[in-house]
Amino acid sequence: MKVGIIMGSDSDLPVMKEAAAVLDELGIEYEITVVSAHRTPRRMFEYAEKAAGRGISAIIAGAGGAAHLPGMVASLTSLPVIGVPVKTRSLNGLDSLLSIVQMPGGIPVATVAINGAKNAGLLAARIIALSDSGVRRRVEEYASGLKGQVDEKIERLERLGWSDYANSME
Amino acid sequence: MKVGIIMGSDSDLPVMKEAAAVLDELGIEYEITVVSAHRTPRRMFEYAEKAAGRGISAIIAGAGGAAHLPGMVASLTSLPVIGVPVKTRSLNGLDSLLSIVQMPGGIPVATVAINGAKNAGLLAARIIALSDSGVRRRVEEYASGLKGQVDEKIERLERLGWSDYANSME
Amino acid sequence: MKVGIIMGSDSDLPVMKEAAAVLDELGIEYEITVVSAHRTPRRMFEYAEKAAGRGISAIIAGAGGAAHLPGMVASLTSLPVIGVPVKTRSLNGLDSLLSIVQMPGGIPVATVAINGAKNAGLLAARIIALSDSGVRRRVEEYASGLKGQVDEKIERLERLGWSDYANSME
Amino acid sequence: MKVGIIMGSDSDLPVMKEAAAVLDELGIEYEITVVSAHRTPRRMFEYAEKAAGRGISAIIAGAGGAAHLPGMVASLTSLPVIGVPVKTRSLNGLDSLLSIVQMPGGIPVATVAINGAKNAGLLAARIIALSDSGVRRRVEEYASGLKGQVDEKIERLERLGWSDYANSME
Amino acid sequence: MKVGIIMGSDSDLPVMKEAAAVLDELGIEYEITVVSAHRTPRRMFEYAEKAAGRGISAIIAGAGGAAHLPGMVASLTSLPVIGVPVKTRSLNGLDSLLSIVQMPGGIPVATVAINGAKNAGLLAARIIALSDSGVRRRVEEYASGLKGQVDEKIERLERLGWSDYANSME
Amino acid sequence: MKVGIIMGSDSDLPVMKEAAAVLDELGIEYEITVVSAHRTPRRMFEYAEKAAGRGISAIIAGAGGAAHLPGMVASLTSLPVIGVPVKTRSLNGLDSLLSIVQMPGGIPVATVAINGAKNAGLLAARIIALSDSGVRRRVEEYASGLKGQVDEKIERLERLGWSDYANSME
Amino acid sequence: MKVGIIMGSDSDLPVMKEAAAVLDELGIEYEITVVSAHRTPRRMFEYAEKAAGRGISAIIAGAGGAAHLPGMVASLTSLPVIGVPVKTRSLNGLDSLLSIVQMPGGIPVATVAINGAKNAGLLAARIIALSDSGVRRRVEEYASGLKGQVDEKIERLERLGWSDYANSME
Amino acid sequence: MKVGIIMGSDSDLPVMKEAAAVLDELGIEYEITVVSAHRTPRRMFEYAEKAAGRGISAIIAGAGGAAHLPGMVASLTSLPVIGVPVKTRSLNGLDSLLSIVQMPGGIPVATVAINGAKNAGLLAARIIALSDSGVRRRVEEYASGLKGQVDEKIERLERLGWSDYANSME
Repeated sequence: MKVGIIMGSDSDLPVMKEAAAVLDELGIEYEITVVSAHRTPRRMFEYAEKAAGRGISAIIAGAGGAAHLPGMVASLTSLPVIGVPVKTRSLNGLDSLLSIVQMPGGIPVATVAINGAKNAGLLAARIIALSDSGVRRRVEEYASGLKGQVDEKIERLERLGWSDYANSME
Repeated sequence: MKVGIIMGSDSDLPVMKEAAAVLDELGIEYEITVVSAHRTPRRMFEYAEKAAGRGISAIIAGAGGAAHLPGMVASLTSLPVIGVPVKTRSLNGLDSLLSIVQMPGGIPVATVAINGAKNAGLLAARIIALSDSGVRRRVEEYASGLKGQVDEKIERLERLGWSDYANSME
Repeated sequence: MKVGIIMGSDSDLPVMKEAAAVLDELGIEYEITVVSAHRTPRRMFEYAEKAAGRGISAIIAGAGGAAHLPGMVASLTSLPVIGVPVKTRSLNGLDSLLSIVQMPGGIPVATVAINGAKNAGLLAARIIALSDSGVRRRVEEYASGLKGQVDEKIERLERLGWSDYANSME
Repeated sequence: MKVGIIMGSDSDLPVMKEAAAVLDELGIEYEITVVSAHRTPRRMFEYAEKAAGRGISAIIAGAGGAAHLPGMVASLTSLPVIGVPVKTRSLNGLDSLLSIVQMPGGIPVATVAINGAKNAGLLAARIIALSDSGVRRRVEEYASGLKGQVDEKIERLERLGWSDYANSME
Repeated sequence: MKVGIIMGSDSDLPVMKEAAAVLDELGIEYEITVVSAHRTPRRMFEYAEKAAGRGISAIIAGAGGAAHLPGMVASLTSLPVIGVPVKTRSLNGLDSLLSIVQMPGGIPVATVAINGAKNAGLLAARIIALSDSGVRRRVEEYASGLKGQVDEKIERLERLGWSDYANSME
Repeated sequence: MKVGIIMGSDSDLPVMKEAAAVLDELGIEYEITVVSAHRTPRRMFEYAEKAAGRGISAIIAGAGGAAHLPGMVASLTSLPVIGVPVKTRSLNGLDSLLSIVQMPGGIPVATVAINGAKNAGLLAARIIALSDSGVRRRVEEYASGLKGQVDEKIERLERLGWSDYANSME
Repeated sequence: MKVGIIMGSDSDLPVMKEAAAVLDELGIEYEITVVSAHRTPRRMFEYAEKAAGRGISAIIAGAGGAAHLPGMVASLTSLPVIGVPVKTRSLNGLDSLLSIVQMPGGIPVATVAINGAKNAGLLAARIIALSDSGVRRRVEEYASGLKGQVDEKIERLERLGWSDYANSME
Repeated sequence: MKVGIIMGSDSDLPVMKEAAAVLDELGIEYEITVVSAHRTPRRMFEYAEKAAGRGISAIIAGAGGAAHLPGMVASLTSLPVIGVPVKTRSLNGLDSLLSIVQMPGGIPVATVAINGAKNAGLLAARIIALSDSGVRRRVEEYASGLKGQVDEKIERLERLGWSDYANSME
């Protein structure tokens, strides 16, 4: 099972690469490309309509501003589509968030936080884990890893005291 | 020259009919139908791509929530596209407004106020008036008419006094 | 494969029942109950931790205001969790939306629109459809059905004209 | 046919020049000047009232904060007026956007995105293209150009992989 | 000294009449009429330019949505101008508030709360009181009156207890 | 130990009475009255300065709009002050919330949800419980009671099914 | 006639000094000091109550966040009070604006834009100009000066062209 | 009596250390550690349930984004819980604020300003001061100290004049 990562513009890559990175980390196959709802609408149509047939299991779509890519893709496929609202210069991504999450009844988009591409990757992983026990195991290990990182910080804060710890962060 | 009025759902008609009504008033030909970006994406493609060829000069597109219709249509035609953000139950149309107006550079949508379908019609009329002197004259008369209505209210307020006038409004 | 629908309060039922209704329509098994993050935190822990073992494939969690249920459940399971922000009296669900969608990196919640429980059900169905071809077929039929409903409205609007159609809506 | 570009302050020029640049690119004649609704109200009146007579076909007006220029100009001419909300220091242009887009019924302003001066230029071009086939051809070529730029990025992303591509952006 | 009360539309009268009522109560002369920035821009110009010469000391201007009346009037007179943002259907007057209060440096508008016409009247009274000791005395009595009303409520709440008091409010 | 409940206007009583009711339920002594920061500033000063001396342990202050009462009281006493933002007609209490919660460093106000007077009472109870074991026991019983109410609803939902339960709510 | 400029903190001085500067420019007497509603409430009381007796004609009060200074001062004097919402780090001054402008009926604060201290000074000048013809003349000259500055920019933009002008701004 | 300071991530420490610093200043014992609602939910449970037994009197919990820590802790203890909304990159802490303050009836969180950790410490001190007269005295001295700092600034502003004072701040 493979994940398709698409973004409305290459300027979204610094955000969207986190989805790719976490899928790499979890050993999940993916492809990543640019598909613009507004500048390449025909490409978007084709991408969305053919994704299932090409073995894609879930699509992660990131876009900013009047962000139409995730919702339009969701209307052209019956795969699960995960939307990543990309932060914008004027409205900080509130426009992207509302443009992606407020879909009308009938066409769902699984929306994550503004710039939340890592969580988009993890959500795709949780979906794939339902039918792939290897992925499931790695998803669970990933969660343990999060806990482990916190534990280390707790221990370090304990050891240094808050003042030195805070100074060490600057 | 003819205007195409489209809306994402028939539930938008109580708002969008004001565009039709003002075009009627100004003697401008139009057609009106439902085109859903999400439920009928192929129809949307076809509508947008064929509009110019069918003699449409401007497209008025109304939609609510994650409102993708105006922007998607604008990406598929080079006609002027006027977007009407329809008021929504939860966010009062702020979501619709941002989904329509915050288009990326390259694909313009002429956005009017939330529920501002009348102004969408008038904007289409101003565009058509550039090459149709009859419409131009009627657009100017419409503006004079607005002034006339205000004049009548001024005179009535003068005559009744604010207290009786306010009572008569209840 | 079974879906777990939970909500923070029985007052969320008028919203959340739409998830149940669409799962019924698509022939997907589900359970529905009240789990409050704040009033029954232990029950929430137990629900989330045991869900996968009980054969649940996806959890739909609805809550309003400082809506912690979806995010907390997502931190306690590795199943996909779908969050439904329920509209609130003061802030119209903007508080619910931000409390659910703005999850930190590591713990994803698949957020749908404010009061978007129907789409939560459809998203669960798209996820299940990945490994259940019967569900996939019904999800695709559902999408066709949406198109069919629009087609009927288009035909009716054509036939009646906008004025009679609008009058018939009142 | 000529476009008038006006702005409330010369501090808006770094934004508004993009309208001029795209009109240059499309071979459309324009003029550009400062007209302040608040500091030069009489000049604004005169500009708006005489624009049509001087051969102007569309007016692009940019302003920030309590942005009254586009709406006031629209009330003094029957030309199409395109409003550009300029980003502001405190409220990021949300004030500009609402001051421009929320016009009352009767007086339309075609509003574009915050700082969306390029799209204002393109919208003017689409309007002029209705009666100028040369402009129409260039507008269509512009759209193809957008697609071409995306195609190049797709190819490059394919070739480099996301990691090198992202590194090359820094 | 006389106050001019103007409003963008007669539909603002139910709000703006409170300014008139409080001026009546304080024995301050006023006139009240409709002046629309958008539908009667020439009338607005004339009103603003002639107000000082006609013996007006302060102008109270109420408007809703893209509310340009107070700011435009302030740019055409050097009298103090008080702006009343009128509540709107979609955005509850946030649009009116920002359109009125966010004026650029150079042209001040004294803005009061959304629908705060009573306070607009009181502000005009405080201004006039600077050079009219009779008005000053009545303004001070008005403030004492406010305190007196609270005192009565305190006493009644004391006497009835909160439960009966609350019941008596329904 | 006694709680002082104050509100800016008697119109806040339908909200603020919930604080009184929950304190009654928990057997905590309180007094309740109207203290307006704006209409009775001297009374507010006196109330705040004398509260500790009169045996008040915590002050619950509710106010709406430009809600200055909780913050001003907090600046005049060193007792814990709990602020209740009361919902407003135009901005739904967002103005009240920000006016209360965004206090500068040095003067804390313990802010609860918009219209959250019940939680204000419970917060006062948690504070008093620190030095009153009877109150602590009742606060814990209250929490158990919340759980019990949820349990009943769970059982009823189980028994009736969601459809009948939802119908019974209408 | 003299203006009192007060601010909640000396950190507001970089904003509030613009009020002083414009009053200097217009030859209006003023005093400027720090008065904190929260850290020096008694000083605030005394300042507000004695201002009129000391010959102050209008008070300009700037504050940020939960900005209570302007409203509290307005409740303690019957002079006109002008509120300046100071921009804040987290919410950009939206909190300051709502805390100042949304005053309840009975106590008006003349609110200007976020960080709009210059306009606060100009508003005070317009008020004083009502009874001081020298100030009135200088206020009118100030307005002419604004126009003159725009005229120069227009001429320069004409002369240089937008490209060179924009380059010269960098 | 001891205060527990917890934060969702060590990245919150630069904000949360101000709570520790002010408790140090007031001679109040505290502990400080990382407890993540999402990455270490079991640790959170244990921390909250055992806090009272370990001699903690109040818990200060800071978190950002979908900030569930304060509310969840409040549901698991009957100690007073003080929530600190930490500023976020996209939404400036508005998401944190609403996720913390908008708690449902039954589970109170005493919310302070965005990044208001110092006030969280002071609020804990005011609570502890109710049963510790030494702390009460120091809290009162702290308030006097605030006044003293303002007094010095007033004197300095008086002495230097606003222009030199402002220059000295740069």
